[in-house]
Amino acid sequence: MSTTPQSSATSISAFTPVADIPRRLFGSFVEQLGRSVYGGIYEPTHPTADEYGFRKDVLDLVKELGVTCVRYPGGNIVSNYRWEDGTGPREKRPVRRELAWHQTETNEVGIDDFYHWSKKAGTEIMLAVNMGTRGLQEALDELEYVNGAPGTTIADRRVANGIPEPMNIAMWCIGNEMDGPWQVGHMTPEEYASRVEKVAHAMKLAESGLEMVACGSSSAQMPTFGTWEKTVLTRAYEYLSFVSAHAYYYDHDHDSHKPEGMREFLASSEDMKQFIATVASCADYAREQNHGTKDIAISFDEWGVWYQDVWQKQEAEWKAAETEGLHTEPWPKAPHLLEDVYNASDAVVEGSLMITLLKHCDRVRSASRAQLVNVIAPIMAEENGPAWKQTIYYPFAEVANHAHGVAYAPEVDGPTFHTATYGDVQALESVVTWDEETREGLILAVNRDPDAAHEVSIDVSALPGVDAARFAVTHAEVLHDDDPYRQNTAANPLAVTPQELTVAADGASVTYELPSIAWSAVRFKA
Amino acid sequence: MSTTPQSSATSISAFTPVADIPRRLFGSFVEQLGRSVYGGIYEPTHPTADEYGFRKDVLDLVKELGVTCVRYPGGNIVSNYRWEDGTGPREKRPVRRELAWHQTETNEVGIDDFYHWSKKAGTEIMLAVNMGTRGLQEALDELEYVNGAPGTTIADRRVANGIPEPMNIAMWCIGNEMDGPWQVGHMTPEEYASRVEKVAHAMKLAESGLEMVACGSSSAQMPTFGTWEKTVLTRAYEYLSFVSAHAYYYDHDHDSHKPEGMREFLASSEDMKQFIATVASCADYAREQNHGTKDIAISFDEWGVWYQDVWQKQEAEWKAAETEGLHTEPWPKAPHLLEDVYNASDAVVEGSLMITLLKHCDRVRSASRAQLVNVIAPIMAEENGPAWKQTIYYPFAEVANHAHGVAYAPEVDGPTFHTATYGDVQALESVVTWDEETREGLILAVNRDPDAAHEVSIDVSALPGVDAARFAVTHAEVLHDDDPYRQNTAANPLAVTPQELTVAADGASVTYELPSIAWSAVRFKA
Amino acid sequence: MSTTPQSSATSISAFTPVADIPRRLFGSFVEQLGRSVYGGIYEPTHPTADEYGFRKDVLDLVKELGVTCVRYPGGNIVSNYRWEDGTGPREKRPVRRELAWHQTETNEVGIDDFYHWSKKAGTEIMLAVNMGTRGLQEALDELEYVNGAPGTTIADRRVANGIPEPMNIAMWCIGNEMDGPWQVGHMTPEEYASRVEKVAHAMKLAESGLEMVACGSSSAQMPTFGTWEKTVLTRAYEYLSFVSAHAYYYDHDHDSHKPEGMREFLASSEDMKQFIATVASCADYAREQNHGTKDIAISFDEWGVWYQDVWQKQEAEWKAAETEGLHTEPWPKAPHLLEDVYNASDAVVEGSLMITLLKHCDRVRSASRAQLVNVIAPIMAEENGPAWKQTIYYPFAEVANHAHGVAYAPEVDGPTFHTATYGDVQALESVVTWDEETREGLILAVNRDPDAAHEVSIDVSALPGVDAARFAVTHAEVLHDDDPYRQNTAANPLAVTPQELTVAADGASVTYELPSIAWSAVRFKA
Repeated sequence: MSTTPQSSATSISAFTPVADIPRRLFGSFVEQLGRSVYGGIYEPTHPTADEYGFRKDVLDLVKELGVTCVRYPGGNIVSNYRWEDGTGPREKRPVRRELAWHQTETNEVGIDDFYHWSKKAGTEIMLAVNMGTRGLQEALDELEYVNGAPGTTIADRRVANGIPEPMNIAMWCIGNEMDGPWQVGHMTPEEYASRVEKVAHAMKLAESGLEMVACGSSSAQMPTFGTWEKTVLTRAYEYLSFVSAHAYYYDHDHDSHKPEGMREFLASSEDMKQFIATVASCADYAREQNHGTKDIAISFDEWGVWYQDVWQKQEAEWKAAETEGLHTEPWPKAPHLLEDVYNASDAVVEGSLMITLLKHCDRVRSASRAQLVNVIAPIMAEENGPAWKQTIYYPFAEVANHAHGVAYAPEVDGPTFHTATYGDVQALESVVTWDEETREGLILAVNRDPDAAHEVSIDVSALPGVDAARFAVTHAEVLHDDDPYRQNTAANPLAVTPQELTVAADGASVTYELPSIAWSAVRFKA
Repeated sequence: MSTTPQSSATSISAFTPVADIPRRLFGSFVEQLGRSVYGGIYEPTHPTADEYGFRKDVLDLVKELGVTCVRYPGGNIVSNYRWEDGTGPREKRPVRRELAWHQTETNEVGIDDFYHWSKKAGTEIMLAVNMGTRGLQEALDELEYVNGAPGTTIADRRVANGIPEPMNIAMWCIGNEMDGPWQVGHMTPEEYASRVEKVAHAMKLAESGLEMVACGSSSAQMPTFGTWEKTVLTRAYEYLSFVSAHAYYYDHDHDSHKPEGMREFLASSEDMKQFIATVASCADYAREQNHGTKDIAISFDEWGVWYQDVWQKQEAEWKAAETEGLHTEPWPKAPHLLEDVYNASDAVVEGSLMITLLKHCDRVRSASRAQLVNVIAPIMAEENGPAWKQTIYYPFAEVANHAHGVAYAPEVDGPTFHTATYGDVQALESVVTWDEETREGLILAVNRDPDAAHEVSIDVSALPGVDAARFAVTHAEVLHDDDPYRQNTAANPLAVTPQELTVAADGASVTYELPSIAWSAVRFKA
Repeated sequence: MSTTPQSSATSISAFTPVADIPRRLFGSFVEQLGRSVYGGIYEPTHPTADEYGFRKDVLDLVKELGVTCVRYPGGNIVSNYRWEDGTGPREKRPVRRELAWHQTETNEVGIDDFYHWSKKAGTEIMLAVNMGTRGLQEALDELEYVNGAPGTTIADRRVANGIPEPMNIAMWCIGNEMDGPWQVGHMTPEEYASRVEKVAHAMKLAESGLEMVACGSSSAQMPTFGTWEKTVLTRAYEYLSFVSAHAYYYDHDHDSHKPEGMREFLASSEDMKQFIATVASCADYAREQNHGTKDIAISFDEWGVWYQDVWQKQEAEWKAAETEGLHTEPWPKAPHLLEDVYNASDAVVEGSLMITLLKHCDRVRSASRAQLVNVIAPIMAEENGPAWKQTIYYPFAEVANHAHGVAYAPEVDGPTFHTATYGDVQALESVVTWDEETREGLILAVNRDPDAAHEVSIDVSALPGVDAARFAVTHAEVLHDDDPYRQNTAANPLAVTPQELTVAADGASVTYELPSIAWSAVRFKA
């Protein structure tokens, strides 16, 4: 039963239209890291493996998840990745040391294979080029291989490798987190701005209509945050469609279950909002400096819950090994890395982050939840065994599949709870999506108050074209567990799943109670 | 008949010696652009094609034109060019997307072939290395391939490709127009200065006597003009022989035939003069900063008449296609690009520009008229058909073949005409060349006044060693058409040609009338 | 007989412990320059050549010299060197133009071969990567080839080339003398700092325990000396173990035998001391700027006597050839370059420099005498003939073989002599080493006074654990010639050798006289 000591009500009936919802908002991220690819989407010896070695059970879960676009192949690995390693006959592909994650990369999977996978998954690809150990020439060659019309030497290599048609990949990331000291070839803002200007210009010369994505800051905590964006976007404004934003959150007390960590964690979307606002203001600054009219959009291409403290312990071990003198032992293939297991509260927070993205989809025109399988992922895959859904799978799937049309930001004025970092914040977070064509809508609401259940009433009659007489709830679900730390695991994969939500409807209005730490979705027709 | 309403006289008898005339002043430019090479100098299926596939009819016109040195292989293409693509067996050469001009480059012609062509044409080669997608290592490798003594691996590849002897190419351009935002890999002045210092130093380590050419500003209109030159030349002073200058001119009213455009156009050499003075002052600044004694010379390696508005329309179409989303259709091979057809006024202006170069040949020690065949060119070549001379062919040929010895700048004080840009300018422009050894001279004079014919009297007796008693006019021609817009075309290739000029001689003095918008040349012996 | 006009006494009994003596302090340097490798350590047609083509007679002299670590393969050549050229089957290796020294590099010897040689010589290798024509990617590939565990494509190339085990090379120089205008790809401090940060970071990601060495200034006379160190070390502090220092000395009057040159030359170690102090202060500055605790050590990886005027004449000849226009004659293989022949004073000065390194071995944790064979070298090798020892061989061999344990800096307060550059300097320079475990010590003393012999008394009883009762001199030698210009030559290779030194012992004290310009070593047990 609920831990809620008290309850209070919030009424919502006024909305501000945000923007049409870009399908790319429901993107994901596949990095050749740990068991994300090897033993994740790919396991040629698995009973469900297809002709390319991809697991069909995982693929089915990806399709059910509703992912629209996948960023590939990284992430940090990009900065020491050679794209051609993942092309052509598998038996001729080189084996590499992958520096970012200390793993041995066999290159059994590369762009050739991932293209086939994405065709089956029905997903767009967003590709990142290596700006760490490589530069402009290799980016141009990769672009020609991937998208070039047959008839040139490099494009014809793709044809010879079994892909006659151009892959038509439109979104290209110019490196990954190039501000991060951990990144191979990390740069100053000026160095990266100079690089982006050259690479984006030349790639767009090569192909009309490319949408170039510049790295933004790796997080709002980077010392160059803001300066980085202003410098890069101002210099390369003309050539850019997007700037990246990355943000990860976790309960810093997840081990001890202290309530302070949970409280801050539940308010994570406050940070994301501020982050979006700052990056947008930098993009606006760049527009003004260039006397431009175009807005550079945000590609929020890494977001999600990630227990970074676990990773930092691993990194610290590697660093400590420094003092043991030179050692050059081989690195493992597909190691177990970043295999975070999520609990109920993680799913609620991810649900609130999706609400935040929707409420800012005028500026955030693409997003990639990081990542997809095994590595900080909604889907887990056992070696030679089943695949199953983590708690965070459910909010993503509901939203990706049912948020269509236009996003509407509701005016919420209800109960608050206190956090050390963000002060008093609204207990309820909500967004409504409404598709005038199909006359279908989705009400998303999160109660992130760790102390109390709350009632919410939402009246959507003010949305354009809503016919209160035709209003009907078609589906309503809530994700909540009285133990917010309860996880889905391989042994008990259905411990936390969405349950039916009891909704009272009156005209175009719905009322329901959300327990403490809960995510909910109500689909309606009108 | 002449359109001249009035006439007035100019007398010239005093001269300032400029400098010995470098043969390189009569250079040209061949970029692998459009039909400059493919279907221009090279057409293996043409009836006149030689063993390499080069058209003999075009080659004959090049030889007759008197070209001394040819800049190759670009131009903008250089910044995404791989020199080795144009070496070795043709059937193994790669096909590339050429980014600068949206063309498919088959690489049937490259440095191997162009070297053979230049041997037949009797021309020096001035080579440009790629600073856009490449850097120092590739430049050094190219230098070794081109000029290396047999016995090293890369030089021996040239030998294996049928060229046992070093090509002995002395002039090397370090990239092309690296200040231009259109250029693949374009740079700030500081970035380029850093690059030039490294590349020029290392190339000169590799080969004694190389003459290195740094890019100057792409035009006097560039926002970094002056700053660029000062920054680059100061940092790399020690290693540089030349700085590039580029300038193109055209009648902005060439379509409408409005007189304002023609008036400004006729005074184009005023701009060129100012350009030369500014670049020279920057080179002097660099010399002072380095406490040096050497003057860095100007290589005016792109100059001529180019209807840039036609090209800008093409570019704007490409840019507009951006909004249509990603498209990756193949690009054409040897497209019809920049095939400007020149009229009588264009020839007169080019004649005045050559006079300007001669009058500044103390500082301008090399120049390349852009370009040679089909592309903004003096020579046009029909596919599987004839080659013919544009109007601009004639002044170049006369000057290149007959301007020898020393250039003398006359003091001209005659009638003027008014221009919006340059104020009142002299109607007459003139230079005299005189070779004391052969006792042959050339008097060049242009009447660029759009409103009036003018009489000119030139007395060369003050030139050193001129013997008035032996003075004799050996040839006199004028290029003029009562319709300054009249063009030579494939159908009527001889519409505008030089005509005999009637000259009155008296001692070492000649007097003749130049109609409005006319170029003239008078050869003499003395 | 001695040229000494007078004599005076110095008593030493107080010492300051410096640090444990790192074995790397007795390193050397082998650059693929002139006959250092080809005709030096390698001569496959020599009667003593081994299965790799290495000369056994030279190898024996190297082992006798006591060299601990060898820096390889350069030097200036590194900046245009491709490491893979020296790997794999010799018959497939490319022949290159080597730009730094105008030589033809056959690549018969490379890292594969040098590794085999170093195994036989018992020496560690310190490897330098090319930062002139190359960058991060090639450095990473080289590291993987050299040190990578088998199982990756590049490491497996090493295995295929006959070296199954990782070479385990720990010290890596990031380029060579990148501040020098003569260096291919020379950089500003900011450019190099940016490069070092990236390369050192990524290489250490690849291999735990690597010790990265950044270039310091090429000499204390460089205009950027100090600024260079501060800029580079501050930016890349986290990743660096060492900063390089280079210093060469010679008697500027070695041709004329004027005494002024000799006087200054004898005091060379004063310059070295100051150099060490300045570089150390820059490293300390960087530590403070980074709020760090680690001290970046000095790798004094080029030091010795080098008659640079001879080389400068050669360079000036090459430069003068510039004016003769383009010429591309082939460069010689293994030319006779920098084959300085050393005299008695050179050996004394090198002895004083070794004393200086020992007295600063708390900060100087690695050093490489430049170079080893034929090129400014202790060992000379005749083609198809004998190898012999230069004068400078002897002090190095004595110290490298017998300086163990801890270095102790004595407090010297004795007679001085005057120099124009350094003012009054101590005539006597001395250091004592003492190994408590083996109970063996070494007293090194130089009389660098050009005008007088001096007596020295050294009492080591203050050293920790010295038992005066057990004190015994086991060996005592002096290197001196009444003609300080006397050389060892191929014809007379034993003209100058160490002679027995007469030592008076009293308790733990020794007294002996050193003639003017003399180096001495006294081994003791206690």
